[in-house]
Amino acid sequence: MIEKFLSVRNYSEKICSNLITEDFVIQPSEEVSPPKWHLAHTTWFFETFLLKPYLKGYNDFHPDFGYLFNSYYQTLGDRNPRNNRASLSRPSVEQVYKYRDYVNVHMESLLQTAESNKDFKETLILGLNHEQQHQELLLTDIKYIISQNLNPPGVFSLPENTSQAIGLNWISISAGNYPIGYSGDGFHWDNEREKHVQYVNDYQIADKLVTNGEFLHFIQDGGYQNFNYWHDEGWKWVNDSQTQHPLYWFKKDHKWQVYTLNGVEELNLNAPVTHISYYEAFAYSQWIQLRLPTEFEWEIASGKFNWGERWEWTQSAYLPYPGFQKPAGAIGEYNGKFMVNQMVLRGASIATPQGHSRPTYRNFFHAPMRWQFTGIRLAK
Amino acid sequence: MIEKFLSVRNYSEKICSNLITEDFVIQPSEEVSPPKWHLAHTTWFFETFLLKPYLKGYNDFHPDFGYLFNSYYQTLGDRNPRNNRASLSRPSVEQVYKYRDYVNVHMESLLQTAESNKDFKETLILGLNHEQQHQELLLTDIKYIISQNLNPPGVFSLPENTSQAIGLNWISISAGNYPIGYSGDGFHWDNEREKHVQYVNDYQIADKLVTNGEFLHFIQDGGYQNFNYWHDEGWKWVNDSQTQHPLYWFKKDHKWQVYTLNGVEELNLNAPVTHISYYEAFAYSQWIQLRLPTEFEWEIASGKFNWGERWEWTQSAYLPYPGFQKPAGAIGEYNGKFMVNQMVLRGASIATPQGHSRPTYRNFFHAPMRWQFTGIRLAK
Amino acid sequence: MIEKFLSVRNYSEKICSNLITEDFVIQPSEEVSPPKWHLAHTTWFFETFLLKPYLKGYNDFHPDFGYLFNSYYQTLGDRNPRNNRASLSRPSVEQVYKYRDYVNVHMESLLQTAESNKDFKETLILGLNHEQQHQELLLTDIKYIISQNLNPPGVFSLPENTSQAIGLNWISISAGNYPIGYSGDGFHWDNEREKHVQYVNDYQIADKLVTNGEFLHFIQDGGYQNFNYWHDEGWKWVNDSQTQHPLYWFKKDHKWQVYTLNGVEELNLNAPVTHISYYEAFAYSQWIQLRLPTEFEWEIASGKFNWGERWEWTQSAYLPYPGFQKPAGAIGEYNGKFMVNQMVLRGASIATPQGHSRPTYRNFFHAPMRWQFTGIRLAK
Amino acid sequence: MIEKFLSVRNYSEKICSNLITEDFVIQPSEEVSPPKWHLAHTTWFFETFLLKPYLKGYNDFHPDFGYLFNSYYQTLGDRNPRNNRASLSRPSVEQVYKYRDYVNVHMESLLQTAESNKDFKETLILGLNHEQQHQELLLTDIKYIISQNLNPPGVFSLPENTSQAIGLNWISISAGNYPIGYSGDGFHWDNEREKHVQYVNDYQIADKLVTNGEFLHFIQDGGYQNFNYWHDEGWKWVNDSQTQHPLYWFKKDHKWQVYTLNGVEELNLNAPVTHISYYEAFAYSQWIQLRLPTEFEWEIASGKFNWGERWEWTQSAYLPYPGFQKPAGAIGEYNGKFMVNQMVLRGASIATPQGHSRPTYRNFFHAPMRWQFTGIRLAK
Repeated sequence: MIEKFLSVRNYSEKICSNLITEDFVIQPSEEVSPPKWHLAHTTWFFETFLLKPYLKGYNDFHPDFGYLFNSYYQTLGDRNPRNNRASLSRPSVEQVYKYRDYVNVHMESLLQTAESNKDFKETLILGLNHEQQHQELLLTDIKYIISQNLNPPGVFSLPENTSQAIGLNWISISAGNYPIGYSGDGFHWDNEREKHVQYVNDYQIADKLVTNGEFLHFIQDGGYQNFNYWHDEGWKWVNDSQTQHPLYWFKKDHKWQVYTLNGVEELNLNAPVTHISYYEAFAYSQWIQLRLPTEFEWEIASGKFNWGERWEWTQSAYLPYPGFQKPAGAIGEYNGKFMVNQMVLRGASIATPQGHSRPTYRNFFHAPMRWQFTGIRLAK
Repeated sequence: MIEKFLSVRNYSEKICSNLITEDFVIQPSEEVSPPKWHLAHTTWFFETFLLKPYLKGYNDFHPDFGYLFNSYYQTLGDRNPRNNRASLSRPSVEQVYKYRDYVNVHMESLLQTAESNKDFKETLILGLNHEQQHQELLLTDIKYIISQNLNPPGVFSLPENTSQAIGLNWISISAGNYPIGYSGDGFHWDNEREKHVQYVNDYQIADKLVTNGEFLHFIQDGGYQNFNYWHDEGWKWVNDSQTQHPLYWFKKDHKWQVYTLNGVEELNLNAPVTHISYYEAFAYSQWIQLRLPTEFEWEIASGKFNWGERWEWTQSAYLPYPGFQKPAGAIGEYNGKFMVNQMVLRGASIATPQGHSRPTYRNFFHAPMRWQFTGIRLAK
Repeated sequence: MIEKFLSVRNYSEKICSNLITEDFVIQPSEEVSPPKWHLAHTTWFFETFLLKPYLKGYNDFHPDFGYLFNSYYQTLGDRNPRNNRASLSRPSVEQVYKYRDYVNVHMESLLQTAESNKDFKETLILGLNHEQQHQELLLTDIKYIISQNLNPPGVFSLPENTSQAIGLNWISISAGNYPIGYSGDGFHWDNEREKHVQYVNDYQIADKLVTNGEFLHFIQDGGYQNFNYWHDEGWKWVNDSQTQHPLYWFKKDHKWQVYTLNGVEELNLNAPVTHISYYEAFAYSQWIQLRLPTEFEWEIASGKFNWGERWEWTQSAYLPYPGFQKPAGAIGEYNGKFMVNQMVLRGASIATPQGHSRPTYRNFFHAPMRWQFTGIRLAK
Repeated sequence: MIEKFLSVRNYSEKICSNLITEDFVIQPSEEVSPPKWHLAHTTWFFETFLLKPYLKGYNDFHPDFGYLFNSYYQTLGDRNPRNNRASLSRPSVEQVYKYRDYVNVHMESLLQTAESNKDFKETLILGLNHEQQHQELLLTDIKYIISQNLNPPGVFSLPENTSQAIGLNWISISAGNYPIGYSGDGFHWDNEREKHVQYVNDYQIADKLVTNGEFLHFIQDGGYQNFNYWHDEGWKWVNDSQTQHPLYWFKKDHKWQVYTLNGVEELNLNAPVTHISYYEAFAYSQWIQLRLPTEFEWEIASGKFNWGERWEWTQSAYLPYPGFQKPAGAIGEYNGKFMVNQMVLRGASIATPQGHSRPTYRNFFHAPMRWQFTGIRLAK
């Protein structure tokens, strides 16, 4: 367990290993947090939910950190407002790394001595999964932060712009009742429960994602200029934001380029399109006279196609499953309170840490969000 | 058919019969339109979709009205922006009434001579249902407009503040597959199709609505001050808007009063609570440790309880049914393009015109909206 | 005195005589008030400052009107917020006219019997001048309100678009100390006092205003596209508002048209340019390598040229004269509290009522405001 | 000259010597720039206006820096938008220091070889004065940036909170014509010219600044709650911003504390009040039934009192002097384009570099700004 713990903790630092100090404090928009904040917040989680309740005689690393690094747990009192994270130069990055070390050392002690209390174990696993979620956000936030600069450099290696296999096949699923949701013993979020039955009609789902080249046809056919393909609020979004292509695309000498975490590259037409909003995913599906799958259709068929490169927008709103119960205490604020006005994404992305994905996993974002590695899989 | 037509058309004018000219031009917020606009827009619908295509030699009443009274049909070209409806003093209310008469007279001619063309008939029925939808909006918009005044007078008689029967019973429904959606020959909106199967678990649903008195307990118990009951964005909404009670409630001499279309009345504790947002409906359900039904649960059980006084918030987002197809042309913009970030309401309200309700009807509003006659029915 | 009183009061109603009821309730932007409000507010002034203190046994016309029709006098308690004037359909226009009649009748009684108390007389004169100020605003607000409509009609006759005499002469003034400010016995505002000395250098001032034709040269020479002529915030204003010409100008069939209170007319190139902001007046002066006069230069030379068609922007900020004292009570809020971030205009306009102008009169508006009959006189 | 040059350049770096890297990239509000930006922008000034035109064969340090570190010179092309300075993590602080070294080395070469060309000399002096202005801004921006942190540390030593001499005397000046503006041969800004005559009435001006203790009386007497003392827009500002005391004041254990660049200290009642807006300075003067001096009164009397600790708000708007001419080229954008809607401050502050003050110096800020070391001197 100690090994697992340290391995997860180390990966967060590995993600940041090519950053310079200045990169750690930038917050270009409210939903993109400074890397320093992620590193401290995930540490605060272990300190708050494990060291304080379980390690006798544990002393807080710093009395201000509870206020500074709580994200949104109202149960735990006042917090530094989310949109104010970029105004804080202190604590220094160096001090945040010391905080990580301090908490790691105490966690190691705790892990060596802790009784195998069920609550303790569950919270530990939760903390590790929490940090893994933030690892994915770290990568996407860093990408967004670095991209704000003129001539942004590469800072991490991910196969973002790699071709997928060629040749689309349609997978057919027969109508009927299917089980949905998590039912095993392993780790899962509260929003994956309860396992329940969902009836679906006959449908077909693509075994490949929509590629950059295919999306380019939509652009060239005037997709961003034709209201017919868009939701009413999607059309407003396109016009207000003057969006004409996926995030990170730009043209240089008449060629499409794309900023990736590896640096600027020529756009690979065979790579799956990414960094598109729900509005764009929907508009694309309308243009090609198909549709997005529901999250249920996705889950039912998920054993029959490859997934894991893009978070895939579904046509399902983020709502509680039948019998959903939010856990007591601060942990209960993790998922339930966000179940309105967001759309479900299924799968995982190239930024998702190893072992942090499963067919029942439900991710969710607001419809205009594009800074995650989102993608499009079609259904009919 | 002529009789039906005139009866619907007359009711719009009846709704406005106690207004003074000044009331017709007010737009206190973007979603509340001036009554003058409703009267002209519903008329424009008949002119655009029936008189122009079907009545030979028909001359537009006025060349500007297409621009002024199109609501949101992009297919039909530019429109006066929605938030600008209150800046137009012209045409006068009198001229709008002349417009109505002019279109009515020509519609009568058309109805006497029109062949029983299927398209024509369907569009006529659509136009009448469209006007009925606007009659409900007229009443709720007028209520909101008049309420902006100091000491607002009564302008229409509706049993808003009437007691419902006492004694709550729980209706039990067994788990299984049930048909959902419209399947008959009568009029229905595109969003009610296709009829399809939905699996539901065992559940119970209340045969009565939550009352003002019950909601008052929530208020008195600090419901508006406790974040635990609220969605994250609902809690933000409560704090930003400083909401402490349903819309139109106010206290005078320590007694709860309520503004109704009949004028100011003492709050009837046995009347169903109304003018609450989805956030409030959800928070109430959390406080009382129950939940809102899904739209499917509502529809399945709808034969077993009385409904029709309040539009009832459900826990379902407004999404397309399986097999949903938007119609071709401007009519296709009626429903489909709004299927994101709205919640479904089921039932009907005291402001719904006679004959304009059925168990499969899906209404939808954004979560913070309160100016409709919304209500709460609980499930478990 | 009664005759004078009634004459002023009647003129306000004459200004509105071609309006329809709907025109009276529109407020297209915060600084443009509904005509109904002007008619009631000027009446409220007489009721509050004369009838209540001086007419024994006077009964308020309506208990709500103090709240509704106070403009900005904090001394007198809460008010309906300024940006909310368009949300009030009640009281009706008819009732506002009744209010005017009621106050007029009581004022007549009072004027017949009142002792010639100095305070009373001064407040009466103040009230009449106050109503005259609002008559000018009524005309400019009505113009703005009607112009919001498609194909706006004419509603009042003013020589807006009339040629001025041709041939510009420069008037030379010698350097030295000059008296500035009001010193006689007649009516004047507190901001015109104290009379004091101002030293000016040798300067020359134009005896004519800049014309539409001259301003057109500035436009054609790219004046709105060249930052060099503009203040930093003026340049931001041009770009944010996308301003390309004076307010009310538009092109039809390649010809410049202008909306006037008489209706739409072809732009008269020999008429003085009007409806331009301070930013535009300044930019024009920079382009032609001259400058705007200070308010002192204007006043000193004002006996030597014709003025009274346009309010003329000066290069002086609105600040207190030496020895300025604000009067006690609510009247003290009339001028002093606005003496920051506004520019002084001198002269009068075609909308200024007869007898309501003098060389020491100081008008003031924020730099971006354009809905008054503003103009440009150059100096060097 | 080289010595002078290096001395000025070194002082900028001395100001930043206690900062950590993270402090250099924060921009908490639009008018407060990251220290990194100041260090690079002042360097860019020398590179652009001296090295490029005068040093043969000079190579730009970096091709992007022209875009990144131009502040507001439209003449010189596109710039990184002002409110976006905090989104740039690159170039690093280290690289900015290298940029400074590179430009310093080349400037030394240039200074050793440059002919004593008049234009060159003037631009050099301008560049040094420009950097000195930014040194003052560096200190006030750093103060604001560090203060955003919880428990902000001290980072620079300035006698902010030091008592001034006790005992106020009124200096009397007789009415008459006085010379205003700069007339010598030394360095001065274009806004200090032309020297001209100003007539003033008899007046008295205080020989001391208003103290913290005196300002506290205003607070305790309800000064922030009484609209009578405030401009209309000042009153709106107080209420919108909920301001109740000068910036950086806070109460701890019922005692007034103040954050200074030295760290948190107990408020010294005998130190001059600082970090107040023009609105507050004006309101204080109204409360105590005196007034602020005009900038002319200040300049005329400035030889008779001590000044230099606070920038002193005057009752004068920032406007051009008679005969003001903006210089040709980019330098012409330095002052003239800001001459609208700002107020003049006179004197200098404890943050002003040695040798960068004189009686004719005109500083200017928008009325609500408080992050400079502003102060209050009274007149009557």
